[in-house]
Amino acid sequence: MMGTDKKLRSNVSQPSIIEPGQPASRPDDPPLLPGEKVMGVAREVTYLCPYSGPARGVLSVTNYKLHFRSMDRDTPYVVEVPLGVVSRVEKVGGQSSRGENSYGIELFCKDMRNLRFGHKQENHSRRNVFEKLQQYAFPLSHKLPLFAFDYSEVFPENGWNVLEPIAEFKRMGVPNDMWKITKINEHYEICDSYPAVWAIPAAATDDDVRAVAAFRSRARIPVLSWIHPESQATICRCSQPLVGVGGKRCREDERYIQLIMDANAQSHKLYIMDARPSANAIANKAKGGGYESEDAYQNAELVFLDIHNIHVMRESLRKLKDLCFPNVEEARWLSGIEATYWLKHIKYILAGASRIANRVETHKTSVLVHCSDGWDRTAQLTALAMLLLDPYYRTIKGFEVLIEKEWLSFGHKFQQRIGHGDDRHSDADRSPVFLQFVDCVWQLTQMFPDAFQFNETLLITILDHLYSCRFGTFLFNSDRERVQDNVKQRTVSLWSYINSSIDNYRNPLYLPRPGVLEPVASVRLISLWKGLYCRWNPGMRPQDPIYQRIRELLVLKEQLEKQVDECKQEQKARVSRNMPTPPRLASPVHS
Amino acid sequence: MMGTDKKLRSNVSQPSIIEPGQPASRPDDPPLLPGEKVMGVAREVTYLCPYSGPARGVLSVTNYKLHFRSMDRDTPYVVEVPLGVVSRVEKVGGQSSRGENSYGIELFCKDMRNLRFGHKQENHSRRNVFEKLQQYAFPLSHKLPLFAFDYSEVFPENGWNVLEPIAEFKRMGVPNDMWKITKINEHYEICDSYPAVWAIPAAATDDDVRAVAAFRSRARIPVLSWIHPESQATICRCSQPLVGVGGKRCREDERYIQLIMDANAQSHKLYIMDARPSANAIANKAKGGGYESEDAYQNAELVFLDIHNIHVMRESLRKLKDLCFPNVEEARWLSGIEATYWLKHIKYILAGASRIANRVETHKTSVLVHCSDGWDRTAQLTALAMLLLDPYYRTIKGFEVLIEKEWLSFGHKFQQRIGHGDDRHSDADRSPVFLQFVDCVWQLTQMFPDAFQFNETLLITILDHLYSCRFGTFLFNSDRERVQDNVKQRTVSLWSYINSSIDNYRNPLYLPRPGVLEPVASVRLISLWKGLYCRWNPGMRPQDPIYQRIRELLVLKEQLEKQVDECKQEQKARVSRNMPTPPRLASPVHS
Repeated sequence: MMGTDKKLRSNVSQPSIIEPGQPASRPDDPPLLPGEKVMGVAREVTYLCPYSGPARGVLSVTNYKLHFRSMDRDTPYVVEVPLGVVSRVEKVGGQSSRGENSYGIELFCKDMRNLRFGHKQENHSRRNVFEKLQQYAFPLSHKLPLFAFDYSEVFPENGWNVLEPIAEFKRMGVPNDMWKITKINEHYEICDSYPAVWAIPAAATDDDVRAVAAFRSRARIPVLSWIHPESQATICRCSQPLVGVGGKRCREDERYIQLIMDANAQSHKLYIMDARPSANAIANKAKGGGYESEDAYQNAELVFLDIHNIHVMRESLRKLKDLCFPNVEEARWLSGIEATYWLKHIKYILAGASRIANRVETHKTSVLVHCSDGWDRTAQLTALAMLLLDPYYRTIKGFEVLIEKEWLSFGHKFQQRIGHGDDRHSDADRSPVFLQFVDCVWQLTQMFPDAFQFNETLLITILDHLYSCRFGTFLFNSDRERVQDNVKQRTVSLWSYINSSIDNYRNPLYLPRPGVLEPVASVRLISLWKGLYCRWNPGMRPQDPIYQRIRELLVLKEQLEKQVDECKQEQKARVSRNMPTPPRLASPVHS
Repeated sequence: MMGTDKKLRSNVSQPSIIEPGQPASRPDDPPLLPGEKVMGVAREVTYLCPYSGPARGVLSVTNYKLHFRSMDRDTPYVVEVPLGVVSRVEKVGGQSSRGENSYGIELFCKDMRNLRFGHKQENHSRRNVFEKLQQYAFPLSHKLPLFAFDYSEVFPENGWNVLEPIAEFKRMGVPNDMWKITKINEHYEICDSYPAVWAIPAAATDDDVRAVAAFRSRARIPVLSWIHPESQATICRCSQPLVGVGGKRCREDERYIQLIMDANAQSHKLYIMDARPSANAIANKAKGGGYESEDAYQNAELVFLDIHNIHVMRESLRKLKDLCFPNVEEARWLSGIEATYWLKHIKYILAGASRIANRVETHKTSVLVHCSDGWDRTAQLTALAMLLLDPYYRTIKGFEVLIEKEWLSFGHKFQQRIGHGDDRHSDADRSPVFLQFVDCVWQLTQMFPDAFQFNETLLITILDHLYSCRFGTFLFNSDRERVQDNVKQRTVSLWSYINSSIDNYRNPLYLPRPGVLEPVASVRLISLWKGLYCRWNPGMRPQDPIYQRIRELLVLKEQLEKQVDECKQEQKARVSRNMPTPPRLASPVHS
């Protein structure tokens, strides 16, 4: 039975703030978030778990999630899927379908899962569930708002303030003699996919900027991403030059690139790292794009990093999903992973980032990074190179800043790549570009287990909410769109949520240290992130997580340190008082 | 130049105890162990490192090792190979060979390495080096003693006392009502590959034992390996019954197996786990062997565990060596690992052990394990099952006991399988059976990181000295042979060495706990032990070992605990000295 009006009213009358996990007033209701409402309930639904077999229970659909609670198990279990995660909903089994549980609904998810539910034909519950799932999984296709605009939870910290562009530039010592901050794009008039505030060579004029914008795809001109605190070698990012088949040149662009090179006194060279395979870069000339010729750009060395485009990556992930879910073929597991090329793609991205970091750090040479439009592979490369170079980005807050800066403010098209609330599941614009970046970060945390303040939980939480549409963070394609829709005012930032329980995301092994990480990008050292891709399969979970033990050790250490401290204070006090009377002894240890 | 008589004399005149690592008296001499002597030195030799390129230096051959020290590098480096590790020495390049370094010697090692040295033809140094290498790598083929009989280092503890068979039985509560200890094999007359002391069903007579011995391959009758402290369910081990094509039966054997079943009041069933694939077990009938028919053995359930024989395992490791050394083909790494089947073999062994442990623990049913002769796969299975069942074997001392008991005393043919000091490198009796066991143990330490008192270093050290011939532990094929050659009196035990620096082998995460380990034997959770198989390749080393950080944490914790303790002691002392009123004491720290 679907929820009736009465049911919905009873829900509305509940206190408006319900903590997640707190039971709602009616026993069948799932726990609700502030702003979440039950849209439909169906009973006698069977969840066809690929691991533990069918379970009968109650299925609820809210404006945020699908919630299933089993009723026929000794220990009832719950399956919960934020509807933003759903990429496709399908009916399975027709009117005449035979066999138990063959009639129902199947959900295909962006997080590697598929879920299948069996409905009783005689209940007529399927039609309503299907309809509600369609509406709330794909609200944009049904002229409904994304859940983030209904969600009203209040957190102590406002995550929207995590990145203050001017402050972040200041942290890097910008402005300085060679770099200035410009608000020429304050109203997104030069480049509608770029942030409002840029750092550019101090010698560049507004006219230069306009001329360069005309010569770069989508007007994404070279601007500063990062500057080395000592050598002043920089990482800049942009899109491809509009060279075309005729090999067009642009004096202003050439001069502007020279200004970037000149801003670094340590080197008379500039590396232009083109993320693409050279064949793709050449092919782009036919569409008016291309790459910098070394004739036109004196002292620049062009390097192709051989990273494939969004379509290749999407196909690779599709194969990986087939391999990981629901079950894997034991005997072909390793060759199956190899055949997806997922790890190979990860390797090329890591190798590219490592190369950029090495040029900046060791060669003290500035690097300009682009791909075609500069919002996919370029973001992967600059963000990873910055993570390798700058320990600040390896802290939790620094990592949030990095994502805000290199991904969000520079217009990675989250809306297009993820397809939030959109039912066109086979849209060719979708691609796991940001997922690949997070996978690369995970690989680095495995290679350097004490270099990151955050743990795997942070990375998985970010990815969960990349899809969930609970927070405003990953909505829209650019800062301009987010400003236009008042996202900061109307939605909650993911960082508000994460920073309110930051201890969950700490790496107990973290040891803050300066210095650059130098990963070896080899398939032999890169491994499949089972904790993410295989997490739905209970047989794939680690049997005995090491981190719990380390965390306990750290807590114990802190308590002991406190005790030693108190003891010393006490002794000091006693000495100064020259005490004959008894001291108050150290407090007991709580473990 | 090879060492002259004078050189050898000068060596003899050195103090007889030279600590490893301590420089010998002449600058070119390598550090020597007590009992080790330089047998030859060659200069201007080139070590052709596959990773860092050729290095010129001095090569020494002793009665224990090959030692090369580079002379042309800024930071000189040393390559050292115990000669026991060498399986084959070959000359490369003839009189007429051209090209630098094409004339020399190549060594093929049992530990995955090959090493190549270039000699100058005009020096005539190759012949002597080759000769000395042949003599001291294969002393048994040249009527020379193994180095273990010359090695004279003294350690505080005598590792030969690690296993006291009677005490180990007592630890398990044997003898008891159902099990007795017998010395019927005291002089190895019943079974020359079994230990001197056995535990057998209390109701079995000496005549039973003799009759059963006649019906079991190599007289390896079913005897007790382990008994559950509560349920009294047991693990017994033996060889295959001599059933033959005619399906011979033996009443005494059937009755004896029934006695083993009856000794466990918890179950009216017995599992016979045959380690082999069923096809191999059937094929063995043609050679007079076979397996127990369920007709003849009432209440026994026969299970085949599908583990392949020594030849298949040897071939698998050969492929793995080709894959790992010296370099790997990036693009085919994972499928290459899969194609060796090494991890698949590891999986079957782990799955078999896990099944045995499960039958004993959960079903409270006794298990009898055998393969063909019961000294290869059987030892893998019983030792691993015991490791899963009994936390004692997961301590350092307990693990030593386990190896002494299930591998050494039960006659795993170390001499045949490793080929100590024997130049027949293609001998079909060689096989990495014990290596596979240690690999399985490593897999378990990865799945259960806090369940083992020992670390990876212990496992690698054991494997290094499996081949090195420095210690007597892994020499010979059986206890009988070791007694005959006075190995305990004439050689040093590996455990003497390990227990004298036991802190090196501790797992900082170890948390002693009761209970059974239940591994999931899946290729998805089993991984290649890169720290062992790929350790010679600098590019394969972990970039940032996590254990160092954890170890530091533990040391810090211990120091803090000590400080807190001292503080408290001091306060207590002060209080008792001049206190008018009693203080409220803090509770001590328990960790």
